Amino acid sequence: MLENIIKGIKAIDKKLMETAQIRLDNLTKPKGSLGRLEELAKHIVGITGKEYPTLKNKFIVTMAADHGVVKEGVSAFPQVVTKQMVLNFINGGAAINVLAKHVGAKLVVVDMGVAANIPNSPHIINKKVRAGTKNFLIGPAMTRNEAIKSINAGIEVVMELVKQGCDIIGTGDMGIGNTTASSAITAVLTDSPVDKVTGRGTGIDDTALLRKISIIKKALLLNLPDKNDPLDVLSKVGGFEIGGIAGVILGAAYNRVPIVIDGFISGAASLIAVNLEPKVKEYLIASHCSFERGHKIILKYLGLTPLLDLSMRLGEGTGSALGISLVDASIKILNQMFTFKDANISEL
Amino acid sequence: MLENIIKGIKAIDKKLMETAQIRLDNLTKPKGSLGRLEELAKHIVGITGKEYPTLKNKFIVTMAADHGVVKEGVSAFPQVVTKQMVLNFINGGAAINVLAKHVGAKLVVVDMGVAANIPNSPHIINKKVRAGTKNFLIGPAMTRNEAIKSINAGIEVVMELVKQGCDIIGTGDMGIGNTTASSAITAVLTDSPVDKVTGRGTGIDDTALLRKISIIKKALLLNLPDKNDPLDVLSKVGGFEIGGIAGVILGAAYNRVPIVIDGFISGAASLIAVNLEPKVKEYLIASHCSFERGHKIILKYLGLTPLLDLSMRLGEGTGSALGISLVDASIKILNQMFTFKDANISEL
Repeated sequence: MLENIIKGIKAIDKKLMETAQIRLDNLTKPKGSLGRLEELAKHIVGITGKEYPTLKNKFIVTMAADHGVVKEGVSAFPQVVTKQMVLNFINGGAAINVLAKHVGAKLVVVDMGVAANIPNSPHIINKKVRAGTKNFLIGPAMTRNEAIKSINAGIEVVMELVKQGCDIIGTGDMGIGNTTASSAITAVLTDSPVDKVTGRGTGIDDTALLRKISIIKKALLLNLPDKNDPLDVLSKVGGFEIGGIAGVILGAAYNRVPIVIDGFISGAASLIAVNLEPKVKEYLIASHCSFERGHKIILKYLGLTPLLDLSMRLGEGTGSALGISLVDASIKILNQMFTFKDANISEL
Repeated sequence: MLENIIKGIKAIDKKLMETAQIRLDNLTKPKGSLGRLEELAKHIVGITGKEYPTLKNKFIVTMAADHGVVKEGVSAFPQVVTKQMVLNFINGGAAINVLAKHVGAKLVVVDMGVAANIPNSPHIINKKVRAGTKNFLIGPAMTRNEAIKSINAGIEVVMELVKQGCDIIGTGDMGIGNTTASSAITAVLTDSPVDKVTGRGTGIDDTALLRKISIIKKALLLNLPDKNDPLDVLSKVGGFEIGGIAGVILGAAYNRVPIVIDGFISGAASLIAVNLEPKVKEYLIASHCSFERGHKIILKYLGLTPLLDLSMRLGEGTGSALGISLVDASIKILNQMFTFKDANISEL
C-alpha cells in the first residue's frame, strides 16, 4: 500500500490558487489585509483542488503507543499513563476532547501500540502493531516490517475517514516516552546535535534531561539509523504512533485532504513522511510552535511557519485543534464574504 | 458618568487566580503544558472574580466614524467607504460578520460619527456624536465635550450589553482615516516619533505615507495635545470611534467583563483608557499583533503579549474575534477537563 500511496501524491494546484487570489482581492477589505488567513484559504484551495472548498467534516486523529525506552527513566510519568490517558480520551475528559469539540472536529483515537489492553469502544480504532516498542537502547525499536505496518495503519485510517467525507485532518499523539523517540528521529533527519533537539517533554528535571540526551546519543551510536532511509530511522528509534501519524500525513496528501500538524511528535512524523515523498510538504499546515525545543528545528527544516505560538507542549492534537479553527475561519472568509461588487462598495 | 466609572474600576482578583492555578495543575495534563491557554483561563478568573467563569454571551462591538483629516489624502479609500462598510456590516457581508459568527459572538455595530445618514436597523446602535471629526490639520478634531460624549457613549453600550448578560467583549473599528488619528494618539501617549508609529493603513504607497507622516507632525505642532491629559489628546487628534472604544474598555473593566482588544485602532483607544485609569490594563487581552507598524509600540507600552500574529491589518474586530475563540477554548479547558482524580490517572 505505502508505495502506491507515495506514487499517487501529486503537487498541489498552484493555478487554482491564483484564481482564489483574485477572489480574495475582490472581497470587501483592503487587499491582503487578512494576512495569513488569506494565505491559508489559498493554500486549502491548492490542496483540495476545489475553488470553494468546505470544511464540514473535520477530524482530529490522535494516535497512541508505548515506548520501550521508558524503562530508562526518560519521562516524568510512568508508562501506564498512556493507557490511562487513552481511557480519558474515551471518557471525554482530556484536553483534546475539550478542544476538538470547541472547534467542531470529531476525535478519532487510534491504538497503534499501547502496552496494555484497551477495552473495545466505538471511540477507538484498534491498529495495534505490538504492545509497545522495544527499548532502543538495546536494539531497534521495531522491525522494518512493523515500521511499514504502522505507516500503512495510518493510511488505512485516512482512507476510512475519506469515505466518511472527511474535509480536513489534524494530527495528534499520546505516548509516554515519545519525545525521546521524536528527538532521536529529529536529530537524524535534520542532521542536528542531540542536545539541540531534546527537551523536557512532560516536565523532567535537569538530571533526567541529561540522562535523556545521553540515552538518545547511545541509541543512535548503537542502532546507526540511515538518514537516507526514513523507514530505517522509524524502525531503529521511532514509535508506532509516529509511524501511524506519518501514514495519516501520506494518506491525507494522497487524497488531497489538508493536514494540520500538531507539535513535536507530529513534527517528527512529518519528517518521516516528507523524507519518503517531498511533495507531502505542500500539504502540511503547521498549527503551532511547541515549547518543546526540537520543534522549531523541525519547522525550519520543513520550511513551515506555525499559525500559533502559545507555549503549548501537551500534544494529543491540542495545537491541531486550534489550528483547524483558523483554517476554518479562512475558508469561511473565502466563501461567505461579499465582494466589492456584491456590496456596492467603492474600490481602490 | 465617566468619572464614576473610572472611580469604580477595581484591581483584578489575584487571590482567585491562585485557586484557578491549583485547579489547572490538577487537570489531566503535565503542569503548565497548555501554556498561554492556562494563563488566559487564570486571567479570566481574575477579571471576572468567578472561580468557574462561563463565556456564553460573547459580543464584538465595532464602532464606526469618519475623520475630517481624510480631506488631506491620507487614505487609499474615499470617505464614503465608511458608510458603505457599515451597510455591509448590516447586510452581513464583511469579514467581521463572518468571523464573529465563526466564533459564536454577536456583532454590535455602533455609529459613533459616520459622515452620512445610516438607515435605522436592529443591527446598528446610533450614538452619533457628530457627522465626522473636523480636519485636525486645521484645528482640534473635536471639542473636549465631544470627546467625553464619545467615551460615555461607549460606556452606555457596555452597560446595555451587561444587562443582556454579556460575558466577554471584543472591540473593533471602522473609519476611513482612522490609522492617521491612531498614529497621532500613539505618538503622543507613547512618546514615540511619528514616523515610527505611522504605517500604510489600508494600503497607501510611499508618497502617500510620507504625506501622512508630515500631516500628523504638522497636526501635533498645531494642536499641541497634552500627553498628561488623555481627553485633550482624544479631542485634538482623535476620532469618535476611538473615544467610543475607550469607553467600551472602561465600561468593561468597571463591570469586570474581559475585554479582547483588536489591532492598531483599538490599541490607540486602549492608550486613552489606560491613561485615564491605569488599572484598566489588567482587564485587557491583546488578540493579535497588527501588521500596522505602530501597534507593536502600543503593545509594548501596555505590556501586553498578543495571542496571534497573522499579519492581519483589517480592523473591524477581526483580530478580536479570533482572540475570543482562544479565550473561549481556555475557559472550556478550565471547566470541562477531568482532574487526575476524576480520571483515576497516576500523577507525577
